[in-house]
Amino acid sequence: MKLYGFFRSSAAFRVRIALNLKGVAYAQQAVHLLRDGGEQHRLEFRRINPQGLVPVLVDGGVTLTQSLAIIEYLEETHPEPALLPDDAPGRARVRSLALVVACEIHPLNNPKVLKYLGGTHQLDEAARTAWYRHWIAEGMAAIEARLAGEKETGAFCHGDRPGIADCFLVPQIFNAKRYHCELAPYPTVMGVFGRCMAVDAFERAAPMKQPDAEG
Amino acid sequence: MKLYGFFRSSAAFRVRIALNLKGVAYAQQAVHLLRDGGEQHRLEFRRINPQGLVPVLVDGGVTLTQSLAIIEYLEETHPEPALLPDDAPGRARVRSLALVVACEIHPLNNPKVLKYLGGTHQLDEAARTAWYRHWIAEGMAAIEARLAGEKETGAFCHGDRPGIADCFLVPQIFNAKRYHCELAPYPTVMGVFGRCMAVDAFERAAPMKQPDAEG
Repeated sequence: MKLYGFFRSSAAFRVRIALNLKGVAYAQQAVHLLRDGGEQHRLEFRRINPQGLVPVLVDGGVTLTQSLAIIEYLEETHPEPALLPDDAPGRARVRSLALVVACEIHPLNNPKVLKYLGGTHQLDEAARTAWYRHWIAEGMAAIEARLAGEKETGAFCHGDRPGIADCFLVPQIFNAKRYHCELAPYPTVMGVFGRCMAVDAFERAAPMKQPDAEG
Repeated sequence: MKLYGFFRSSAAFRVRIALNLKGVAYAQQAVHLLRDGGEQHRLEFRRINPQGLVPVLVDGGVTLTQSLAIIEYLEETHPEPALLPDDAPGRARVRSLALVVACEIHPLNNPKVLKYLGGTHQLDEAARTAWYRHWIAEGMAAIEARLAGEKETGAFCHGDRPGIADCFLVPQIFNAKRYHCELAPYPTVMGVFGRCMAVDAFERAAPMKQPDAEG
């Protein structure tokens, strides 16, 4: 398989974790989101994903976009080890936790949104940082409340094996750290994060471990 | 089943469509998102969903949140009629289309974001409307390009039966219309929309058909 991504893209990071957890071999093709106005806008990449977003996973003749759809595809085509539990309520819980990250935090903080806020709406850097931290704090508080309060939480988001919710949570914490967000209010989240980062599949997927990493 | 929703919530609208398509009986409990500062913030509702968001679907002892996780749960527990195709690439395609709405458009335009832009960042109503229309236009252009260019598109987003992608697309078009967004540039999208609205399950799920509808 071939993964088009960017070391710092948290959506690509999610997919790298899932590929590593499942032991699927993949080659990486870096798409530098910031260089020269963004390589994702080049015609060459637009032919692969007209939306100009990473990650894109190419599996033979199949081109896949949107990180959750990609990971669900991997779950269906490479079922072991499972990243979703067996029971429908558990599967819904894991997906809903992933979606808090995917729908309530990440879309508000991605580079195209920050750029639009800075350009069209003339929010300065301090205001953009406040915006960024606001959505991290609101989303992480929701995840903390759930992980701390729901009996299905284990060493990881759901039980004692890493799964899809962890694939989404960990990259979001990396983003939060990069923006120096306060993380002490989320001890359950940070406990899960620490246990994930002790797992090779997560550690190898980290931004600074990627071939295209920049300091 | 019991669905906590709000007539105008497009995330609740998605779940209503899926329930109707599957012929699952459900009672509705309205949570008025705008009245008295928002009924979703009341302790009574926070006990059901601490995040204070609709929709919530309660199925016996199981409480489900996040519309895509709810619909995937319905797909697993009530497989017929299927809202996802049988093949993994097709399932990934349908999910990725749904996620363009769920992750690229809707999170940027929901009421809590508009409220935050208006409050903390003092964007006036004209600027907020421009913001709203910008994300609709960008997301719908992406969906139009995919639906028009991909051979799997049929009468509906994927083939000739309605599915999960349609459950997400239709409510987003209702939102676009409410904000008087230009929809002529998306003829393939609007063709699918028209065919969906001719289906009883979609038509009965529309905001103005709900018990809590307001003019």
